[in-house]
Amino acid sequence: MAKSKAKLKRKVSKLKKKVKGLKAELKAQPALSPVSPLAPTDGFPELPEIGGVTFAAGAAGVKYKNRTDVMLARVAKGSAVAGVFTRSSTRSAPVLDCQAKLVDLQKTDTVEEAMGVVVNSGNSNAFTGKVGAQSVEFVCKAAADTLGIGAGNVLTSSTGVIGEPLPHDRITAVLGDLSKGLDPAKGADAAAAIMTTDTFPKGVAATVEIDGKQVNIAGFAKGSGMIAPDMATMLVYIFTDAAITSSAFQSLISDHNKTTFNAITVDSDTSTSDTLLAFATGAAGNTQITDAQSTQGQALGAALQSVMRDLAHLVVRDGEGATKFLEVAVTGAADDASAQIVALAIANSPLVKTAVAGEDPNWGRVVMAVGKSGEPADRDKIAIHFGDILVAENGWVSPDYTEQQGVDYMKQQDLRIATDLGIGDGTATVWTCDLTHGYITINADYRS
Amino acid sequence: MAKSKAKLKRKVSKLKKKVKGLKAELKAQPALSPVSPLAPTDGFPELPEIGGVTFAAGAAGVKYKNRTDVMLARVAKGSAVAGVFTRSSTRSAPVLDCQAKLVDLQKTDTVEEAMGVVVNSGNSNAFTGKVGAQSVEFVCKAAADTLGIGAGNVLTSSTGVIGEPLPHDRITAVLGDLSKGLDPAKGADAAAAIMTTDTFPKGVAATVEIDGKQVNIAGFAKGSGMIAPDMATMLVYIFTDAAITSSAFQSLISDHNKTTFNAITVDSDTSTSDTLLAFATGAAGNTQITDAQSTQGQALGAALQSVMRDLAHLVVRDGEGATKFLEVAVTGAADDASAQIVALAIANSPLVKTAVAGEDPNWGRVVMAVGKSGEPADRDKIAIHFGDILVAENGWVSPDYTEQQGVDYMKQQDLRIATDLGIGDGTATVWTCDLTHGYITINADYRS
Repeated sequence: MAKSKAKLKRKVSKLKKKVKGLKAELKAQPALSPVSPLAPTDGFPELPEIGGVTFAAGAAGVKYKNRTDVMLARVAKGSAVAGVFTRSSTRSAPVLDCQAKLVDLQKTDTVEEAMGVVVNSGNSNAFTGKVGAQSVEFVCKAAADTLGIGAGNVLTSSTGVIGEPLPHDRITAVLGDLSKGLDPAKGADAAAAIMTTDTFPKGVAATVEIDGKQVNIAGFAKGSGMIAPDMATMLVYIFTDAAITSSAFQSLISDHNKTTFNAITVDSDTSTSDTLLAFATGAAGNTQITDAQSTQGQALGAALQSVMRDLAHLVVRDGEGATKFLEVAVTGAADDASAQIVALAIANSPLVKTAVAGEDPNWGRVVMAVGKSGEPADRDKIAIHFGDILVAENGWVSPDYTEQQGVDYMKQQDLRIATDLGIGDGTATVWTCDLTHGYITINADYRS
Repeated sequence: MAKSKAKLKRKVSKLKKKVKGLKAELKAQPALSPVSPLAPTDGFPELPEIGGVTFAAGAAGVKYKNRTDVMLARVAKGSAVAGVFTRSSTRSAPVLDCQAKLVDLQKTDTVEEAMGVVVNSGNSNAFTGKVGAQSVEFVCKAAADTLGIGAGNVLTSSTGVIGEPLPHDRITAVLGDLSKGLDPAKGADAAAAIMTTDTFPKGVAATVEIDGKQVNIAGFAKGSGMIAPDMATMLVYIFTDAAITSSAFQSLISDHNKTTFNAITVDSDTSTSDTLLAFATGAAGNTQITDAQSTQGQALGAALQSVMRDLAHLVVRDGEGATKFLEVAVTGAADDASAQIVALAIANSPLVKTAVAGEDPNWGRVVMAVGKSGEPADRDKIAIHFGDILVAENGWVSPDYTEQQGVDYMKQQDLRIATDLGIGDGTATVWTCDLTHGYITINADYRS
């Protein structure tokens, strides 16, 4: 009996050791977080209601179970509309349809009829041949009938698996109920319905005074893989009650897209479905803005830019597997275009991104990325800052820099790497996240 | 007593369950293999001795302990020399030194004096300012003195950490002993000394008959991160006993570099140190080749190409964390340059590479990569093969394709994805590996 007890004790001790060892091994391979560690701590913001805009979300079972996957929005007649899209040569059927319709919708200052927006998650309806275009038609027709508008006024987006036929009947089956539930307060529900591998819904609000009137802006977006300029599997919807013509609105949205959604990258891969649609209802009552360059246009543009930039940052903060948010600034380049190429070379470098993941102040990989960009650079004129710390200058490590400074800095969640090339006036800033085991886990399994 | 025993038994059972759970978790996160699973099963090849070439390897302790990290080669007088280098704008001091010296060495048909090659691993002497250039001078002077030749005839390479001063005195301290041990049979030792994160040494041999004489070629290389065209942290040394002028030799090496070392990518990152040096001693006794386009030049070129291609494949097979070898072929592009850009867009796509890692026949990501390349393509004309299986055509999945076919195919270690764009005659083939947890583990920790 005693012997047997001693044996059991030895077994317990042996197993405890085993557990300890296995735990140590597991710790070395961090598990996936259900919600990005970079998600805003204060959750989804209170979005202002936008006069003339209503939302609804429902569960159509396109692919996901037990969650909403379709959103419907209705925008009042007399609104302006603007859009930017992926430049992929293999873009999806919904993108092609939106682009064609926008040409017509923007022929007048504002759209006479109401507009509808239908977005589904779970299936991107991309590379689905002629059947894909037919599915878009079915969805648009059903939404148009339900909303009592023309099919030409319905814009759709789809995000999810590529190459599988869109089960459009599942979407059309829920549109009737959705149109009955349209509500100006349901923006948050709409933002949640369009998520795919996103770990949190992304919304941003802003207000700006124009002509003594308060103008409201509400935007939401989804990420979170295939994020790269031109653009990403990014779907972005922005609504404002500003009064503005479609052409001025388009000018503001296109312009600010460059420094916001086209300045972020998660993995350099460009989606076939990227879509940004923006609507301006005019309910705020300001004098209609007809010139993007006017004082009023610039005021609205600044507010739009802040919404677009904050949404873009949220997309990066939900980058697949992200644990660090990284701002990459380049100054002193030959020109702005050159600065942008260098910044993206740094931000897209797997070696820079894994160094950030490993909290390794490996400025040598930044130098490597500058070198690989193919842009004009002079090794001996490059200066690199990590945050406020001057890390490298004059072709070498800075004499005052200590490795410990870098190690301490890299522990922060939000990082900034600034590279001055010292040869011109070109500047650019882009944002990205780190490349982690989480990215591999998500993408070696998820069928996108 | 009995109660206590029962308690212990419960504890054992509980701990066993814990061990089981932890083991399952660990299994989901595969551990790093000490040697790449793609390494050749028959080990390092028997390299032929090349008349006029001798090697030695030693342990200088540049960074690594308990292994060799310096190789010395001596090439007899009257040899031809050729080289290709990284195009990085931040290339290392040894690369800049080699490029300058080659201009002089190639002024005559062959080099009158003997040449020396010194390569160290553990430190790349890149971004080390003026001190870096001085270190190269010290090493070249010491090697020249030991070999009894001019310093202008010594070519060096360094690979490893960027931005740390090269401890050149450790290298010069071992050169005397190395020069005494120079031996035509020590090519394998040299190949092992130049490894960094490589998991196996890489060598390739070939023979070809020219003018009735047997011409031998022996080459070795190292990888294995920062591998991308133009070129990689790739160091490659090729030796042949062919008789050829330096200008004809350079022409053959430069030409075949395009379809070999410049057609592989591991992670799209370009090294600051890439170097290929090739030497031809003339000991084979063939009539000196003076024209790369001659029958003899083409025969030698074909043999060189096969050595270069096989070495390039070995570098990919040792790509950091690689578990799959992937050939990406593009046909029907607007032209060859366009095909190459599309092929690299596919081969460098993190989403394609993680799909390969996950054995997921995700052809949608191939379509995405074609689209993001920015090159001319027509969605409805693209045809994609996985091996012999027609996966997609006419803008959609092929009617005869079944998911199971793709799943079965992806289980193979060596894969081929062929994309026909159907719009022109341009073709290109590139090689890459998958993107795995192993890559992250290596690069989030290793200070390169």
